[in-house]
Amino acid sequence: MNIVIMAGGSGTRFWPMSRSSRPKQMLDIIGGKPMLRATYDRVKDLAPDERILLVVGREHLAETRKIFHDTSVRIIAEPFGRNTAPCIGVAAAFLLRHLGSDAPVAILPADHYVAQPEEFREALREAASQAATGGIVTLGILPTRPETGYGYIERDPQDLGGKGKSIHRVLRFVEKPGVDTAERYLASGNFYWNAGIFVSTPGVLLEEFASCLPRFHEGLGQLHFTEDPLLMAENMTELYRGTENISFDYAIMEKTSRPVFVMPCACGWSDVGSWYSLYDVRRNERDPRGNLLDGDALLEDCTDSFVVSKGGRWIAAIGLHKVLIVDTEDSLLVADLERSQDVRKVTDHLRGSGDRRLL
Amino acid sequence: MNIVIMAGGSGTRFWPMSRSSRPKQMLDIIGGKPMLRATYDRVKDLAPDERILLVVGREHLAETRKIFHDTSVRIIAEPFGRNTAPCIGVAAAFLLRHLGSDAPVAILPADHYVAQPEEFREALREAASQAATGGIVTLGILPTRPETGYGYIERDPQDLGGKGKSIHRVLRFVEKPGVDTAERYLASGNFYWNAGIFVSTPGVLLEEFASCLPRFHEGLGQLHFTEDPLLMAENMTELYRGTENISFDYAIMEKTSRPVFVMPCACGWSDVGSWYSLYDVRRNERDPRGNLLDGDALLEDCTDSFVVSKGGRWIAAIGLHKVLIVDTEDSLLVADLERSQDVRKVTDHLRGSGDRRLL
Repeated sequence: MNIVIMAGGSGTRFWPMSRSSRPKQMLDIIGGKPMLRATYDRVKDLAPDERILLVVGREHLAETRKIFHDTSVRIIAEPFGRNTAPCIGVAAAFLLRHLGSDAPVAILPADHYVAQPEEFREALREAASQAATGGIVTLGILPTRPETGYGYIERDPQDLGGKGKSIHRVLRFVEKPGVDTAERYLASGNFYWNAGIFVSTPGVLLEEFASCLPRFHEGLGQLHFTEDPLLMAENMTELYRGTENISFDYAIMEKTSRPVFVMPCACGWSDVGSWYSLYDVRRNERDPRGNLLDGDALLEDCTDSFVVSKGGRWIAAIGLHKVLIVDTEDSLLVADLERSQDVRKVTDHLRGSGDRRLL
Repeated sequence: MNIVIMAGGSGTRFWPMSRSSRPKQMLDIIGGKPMLRATYDRVKDLAPDERILLVVGREHLAETRKIFHDTSVRIIAEPFGRNTAPCIGVAAAFLLRHLGSDAPVAILPADHYVAQPEEFREALREAASQAATGGIVTLGILPTRPETGYGYIERDPQDLGGKGKSIHRVLRFVEKPGVDTAERYLASGNFYWNAGIFVSTPGVLLEEFASCLPRFHEGLGQLHFTEDPLLMAENMTELYRGTENISFDYAIMEKTSRPVFVMPCACGWSDVGSWYSLYDVRRNERDPRGNLLDGDALLEDCTDSFVVSKGGRWIAAIGLHKVLIVDTEDSLLVADLERSQDVRKVTDHLRGSGDRRLL
């Protein structure tokens, strides 16, 4: 099969560690390697390197090459971000027209975490064999709590699978729910978390682009493919300029007339969308008092706190409970750990102040 | 009258801002000037500069000279610290034998805060006129809460004063009490906080040294005085080497057979003994949500917190309540503000680790 890893994001939810020049997928905030590399390592056994495509921002090309120096993955450098639809369109065309492969392709974000990678790979393999028969297959993460931070997928209850493997038709995709709705989803057993991971064939994907985004598809037809990422980024510039910023979910998944399937997956997945989420995912690394420590710090009578020391400074903490400390060379964040998603208020402030050095 | 300001302390209660090379009295943590200078400014109208003695550690001589470049105060540099008794003994001998003055001398720590300086000066003037008649007069701070962090002075209820001015004999000095005892002290009306401030004459002080610390007094008799602080520190070295580390309270005040008086004083005094105490003293500078900010920081939904930004870093804080952040170039402290006295556990740890760079 083929793999496309989408690493074009530029979020600042891990500010002050993540910056526009150092987005989350480039950070080694878990497992000691950049999330992009961990995503690759998680799926590299499913496809040869030549059939693994990394789509990154042009400004991260050099670092990506460094991270993957020991591999022969293919890299597509986007001239600038245009959300996931254009990214996936170019990747599908690259696979089908340039590499001549119409084998199923798994499309994965580069910045997620999976606790049980073998379950994850097994789900992708199953999804690929379903995708080979036409249609689009999404991974549905079995929810473990009434999470309000994720979108959900509602399944048709009828199980189309066999041999102990489930697969369902998708009834609808739903946006992040309120807490009551999330409780109901969790109780019903018919809802999954939408991880934004799906599998289809390049040919099917391009047909969908032809019907849902015809102008973009026309531009794709004139795109000249090359193995040189910088040249390729040049070639993509005009196409991207003429394309709207639009997600694959919105442009294709919600409009397609093809069958859409959901493949259930219980693999300990997390989108690691905030400092608190990272603290949650890394629960096994906490000390007996619930503290998680990245780098050196002296914790005196602290509980359930998370200290990230990357600024080369000596850190001491006294009597803290559920506090997040992130110290970098030029910036320091101290927050109520459970309110770490509010870091966007800080980055919004920085954006508003016109001072972009710290973004 | 004469003034002696004792600035030999080397505490690290304001770590990481205070260091052995930068003790509290040298920090401008309140009012925009070093506490030592503020102490001088508070009393400079009571005596000519030539009769104001600063006793500092030799290692702080250069900085002290800089801070007092526009004055003609006298500086005694101690070769090393030996607590308050030797310091006061040398100062008293300097005044009587070198300057030939037996006028009353007020002995003041260099690192206290006084909200109402005029009340403070008035109390020192009154104390000086009482001291001129023999005896030792201590300032008794009218307690405003059942503080367990201060020592107390119990007065004899009989008021010996006149013309609206109170003065009492001291019954006893008591150590820091428990909270129940402190409540009782506060309710009784017969207890004052011991600020470690007292007034006597150089002659009386030297007589006390002769009877309470005879060997030290003998050494004092052989001490050669000079205006050159470095030479003076040389001269003091042998005397200090042969002297125990002992406080004036313990060596003299608790043993003297002279009358000891307490002069009540309601002057908004604080020993500013911790970050929390500093936050308390600077209550007028807090924002409407109770936050106190030294330097720049973005506070997002924080209350009753204290942020000191001296590290040149950009600081953001989110959702904190009663948290202390002190950021310096090489160290960072984040603490429950009400537990800021536990900073000594951090400095104890640093001492124990053998790494003295951050002390």
